[in-house]
Amino acid sequence: MRFVTISDIEAAAERVRGTAVHTPLLRQHWAPGQLWLKPESLQPIGAFKIRGAYNAIAALGENERTRGVVAYSSGNHAQAVAYSAKAFGVPAVIVVPDSAPRLKVNATREWGAEVVEVPFADQAPVAAQLARERGLTLVPPFDHPDVIAGQGTAGLEIAADLPEVDTVLVPVSGGGFASGVGIAVKQRCPAAKVYGVEPELAADAEESLREGRRVEWPMADRARTIADGQRAQPSDLTFAHLQKVLDGIITVSEDEIRRTVRTLALRSRLVVEPSGATAPAAYLHHTSELPGGRTVAIVSGGNLDPALLTELLA
Amino acid sequence: MRFVTISDIEAAAERVRGTAVHTPLLRQHWAPGQLWLKPESLQPIGAFKIRGAYNAIAALGENERTRGVVAYSSGNHAQAVAYSAKAFGVPAVIVVPDSAPRLKVNATREWGAEVVEVPFADQAPVAAQLARERGLTLVPPFDHPDVIAGQGTAGLEIAADLPEVDTVLVPVSGGGFASGVGIAVKQRCPAAKVYGVEPELAADAEESLREGRRVEWPMADRARTIADGQRAQPSDLTFAHLQKVLDGIITVSEDEIRRTVRTLALRSRLVVEPSGATAPAAYLHHTSELPGGRTVAIVSGGNLDPALLTELLA
Repeated sequence: MRFVTISDIEAAAERVRGTAVHTPLLRQHWAPGQLWLKPESLQPIGAFKIRGAYNAIAALGENERTRGVVAYSSGNHAQAVAYSAKAFGVPAVIVVPDSAPRLKVNATREWGAEVVEVPFADQAPVAAQLARERGLTLVPPFDHPDVIAGQGTAGLEIAADLPEVDTVLVPVSGGGFASGVGIAVKQRCPAAKVYGVEPELAADAEESLREGRRVEWPMADRARTIADGQRAQPSDLTFAHLQKVLDGIITVSEDEIRRTVRTLALRSRLVVEPSGATAPAAYLHHTSELPGGRTVAIVSGGNLDPALLTELLA
Repeated sequence: MRFVTISDIEAAAERVRGTAVHTPLLRQHWAPGQLWLKPESLQPIGAFKIRGAYNAIAALGENERTRGVVAYSSGNHAQAVAYSAKAFGVPAVIVVPDSAPRLKVNATREWGAEVVEVPFADQAPVAAQLARERGLTLVPPFDHPDVIAGQGTAGLEIAADLPEVDTVLVPVSGGGFASGVGIAVKQRCPAAKVYGVEPELAADAEESLREGRRVEWPMADRARTIADGQRAQPSDLTFAHLQKVLDGIITVSEDEIRRTVRTLALRSRLVVEPSGATAPAAYLHHTSELPGGRTVAIVSGGNLDPALLTELLA
């Protein structure tokens, strides 16, 4: 297994420049202590996923890329691959679970991708089959060094904008984002602590890190959380990275997630999806479990159905 | 009358660095044409006003500043002066109209300022009296070269981030923001057009520019718009600047403002106050009145009462 290096992430930063937004760090004076948010919700597709997907497609050979790409995803990665393929002018097929939020599925179609809806468990095999049949390259949501390196560019930005950062909070689902951000932050700011954040109802990575081995949670369990972007679980590759770079994982309750979506709208003026609220929720509701100091909580995305937004604001 | 120069704005940019956020330009792919938003709603106090207020206070002599500052404002300028005074550790007294939104008044108090509530028409005389009695320096909301220069730093950022910009849309109230942004953009990008945007119900600057002289609208008329940050009217100083830098003024309806607040929440993931939505509303609903091309619409602020937000989202 090859670990992603800071050089990989620096190369990714060159590739995604002009496509991914260098999101600002926003000091939150209303919160106790010293909190900055990094609003990845403001990326072109509304989530950090653009970084990894674009980097992975940019890193392909010309011939491979021209044949097109295929991906499977419950939401934001689908949009990220569709967007990036369009940017390169190559075809994209996206396999989505039929349970995916309509907003994310529709947005994927708007980027011009072909969308194939299948039962949740069939996503990976159907994507693999499409790759074989049509000569497409699979862009996985997290289980790939180029994806991890792309996500890590957010960590480089944190280190550049707040070199004296003490603590970084990053959501964990498949673990690609936390892996990449962790590598970048630990390399550039060796004294900083990096904590993953999971919903209590999908805390497989937390249990896995505690046990020192990958523990599988049934999908039916993980599907309970409102944070629909955090229902995946790490692969061998990302788990090995998480073991190396995370100082711990904080778990947050559904109520904490919901309240934080509301707080971020009213105090931070950001529309955030439930998965995007988990890292700030950890800061606001689990202070005693964290080292404190200058803390950056990454807001991973902002794609949520309008009905859910009005419900959470009420 | 001394016109604000690009050097004044460059000096202001040095002063506000580290206090005002360099807000990113966010490409809006869902909108027709080529639209970028500049989300000044993400500034520490939720509006561009931090730029002018901080610059004006930073430009004071040490002795003057130490005695403290006084300001009058219906909202965001109040917070900006309170915030900036706190940053310098000097006292601030803010005179607010008793009709001001509670959210903005409370936020001003949270920054440690002394708040004095008076009837709308008494704001300026009461502030002047406090300045005399207590030796405070008045920081006006727009009628001052240092305030205009500070607001102009947003224009410098646009020119740096999108040098090939064709059109800039900036809201007009007292005219300080549009003056500063206009000077910076026209100097750095001479081919770019700069349009002001006003609510139809408070379109005094539009009428004034058309007539070639300052036309006063009764406050009772201007108070009708939901865009509570756009109820002021230009001074001689700002009107002279607007005459020089604006290529025109677009007026938007109340319905267009309301719909745009909703659209920006759902498509741009930004919580925006009505005044912050007028420039994007001009882009979305008055296309034929604009030259088109690469267009930046500035979102001036994001402070609105929670009840209004839920009403506009419903």
